[in-house]
Amino acid sequence: MPRYKLTIEYDGAPFLGWQVQENGLTVAGVLEAAAEKLAGERVRVHGAGRTDTGVHAFAQVAHIDLAKEWDADTVRDGMNAHLRPHPVAVLLAEKAAEDFDARFSAVKRHYLYRILNRRADLALERNRVWRVARPLDERAMHEAAQHLVGNHDFTTFRAAECQAKSPVKTLDVLNVTRAGQEIRIEASARSFLHHQVRSIVGSLVQVGDGKWTPADMKHALESRDRTACGPVAPPDGLYLVRVDYAK
Amino acid sequence: MPRYKLTIEYDGAPFLGWQVQENGLTVAGVLEAAAEKLAGERVRVHGAGRTDTGVHAFAQVAHIDLAKEWDADTVRDGMNAHLRPHPVAVLLAEKAAEDFDARFSAVKRHYLYRILNRRADLALERNRVWRVARPLDERAMHEAAQHLVGNHDFTTFRAAECQAKSPVKTLDVLNVTRAGQEIRIEASARSFLHHQVRSIVGSLVQVGDGKWTPADMKHALESRDRTACGPVAPPDGLYLVRVDYAK
Repeated sequence: MPRYKLTIEYDGAPFLGWQVQENGLTVAGVLEAAAEKLAGERVRVHGAGRTDTGVHAFAQVAHIDLAKEWDADTVRDGMNAHLRPHPVAVLLAEKAAEDFDARFSAVKRHYLYRILNRRADLALERNRVWRVARPLDERAMHEAAQHLVGNHDFTTFRAAECQAKSPVKTLDVLNVTRAGQEIRIEASARSFLHHQVRSIVGSLVQVGDGKWTPADMKHALESRDRTACGPVAPPDGLYLVRVDYAK
Repeated sequence: MPRYKLTIEYDGAPFLGWQVQENGLTVAGVLEAAAEKLAGERVRVHGAGRTDTGVHAFAQVAHIDLAKEWDADTVRDGMNAHLRPHPVAVLLAEKAAEDFDARFSAVKRHYLYRILNRRADLALERNRVWRVARPLDERAMHEAAQHLVGNHDFTTFRAAECQAKSPVKTLDVLNVTRAGQEIRIEASARSFLHHQVRSIVGSLVQVGDGKWTPADMKHALESRDRTACGPVAPPDGLYLVRVDYAK
């Protein structure tokens, strides 16, 4: 069966996350329904990562198999027509090799977490950022973040329900920068544990707030103890930015 | 009565515009309701400009008079508490001179119009940009825009229901730039006619699309004829960015 690679943007706010569920609207669920309406057959959508409820994507990647050959642009335009009115868009559809797998072929995943550091409530950025009213020191946050870069046991920053075989991951990038009132946290790795980015961001905010020193982040990591983690950051500010493939 | 200057951000999507109406939710309406709950008195909100249905603001300015002296930060925080769950936020409240008038003291207004120039439907930017699927030439648009800068009779770009005394306005800035798939149109003037920015943007898209030459924009302006205007751009992409005051 011909395989297609899809690059997908979505607003996570109205969805119960990526993964298809029996009850409730999910991103993969509305994508499968759109592909089925287009192709007139049962279609499964396999994503690069299972984003949680409320988490967004600038460019999630998925693959689908269709019974017959379709023009790739027709797949994109036809799925988009059937996706309306859901805030999910197929940015690109491409014919893929039959051994391409959106999840297992991925070599790197890039996430962005956006904090709006201001006192006033959210208006234009509602559901799109985490508002933190207390002034945050982004330099201390960046310093703390560097303790997490590299190959570590991330048990502290892993949700209880995480199904990964090992808590050991290699975090390639964890940068904290500020632009005006916005603090941006960029994280890149081959793969992440469940709630890893949100757990790290919640802990970084403890540092930015002065409750933790940058060295406390190192201690939290080394404790390998979930209870040493800061409060998990809300999903609103998290975006799957890009997924890289070797070919 | 003590006067306060408010700087306000809002998502225009759920509102029937700025101006209070008998029926329907408006931005000034929810602001008045919030101020009244806070102060326990009838409050009128006077804005710098009356944005249309669906138009957003990063920093609209308004003034209110309250019967007694309030700490300005209490006005901001108290109004924000009463504004929930509406996507309207008071970014700043400041004590103002009694002759300060949000509308009549304004010396310049700055607008931004955002176009997302791509084929795929909107997802994360729904209600926040105008999606134009056909490729637009932003350089031709910028060239055409320069014919409109300066003091002109803008009858062509003025809604039939515009209540301004004169169609003559001075447009100080009209810049068209591209960043990736986003085309940004910045417009600054002391004041604007009703639908002026959206009328100009709709006509600029005719140029970007190759239907008009840049010189056609000059002819449209000089015709002083509403029927020479391009299709008016939708409100979704329009933002009131800032209002300047002399003091």
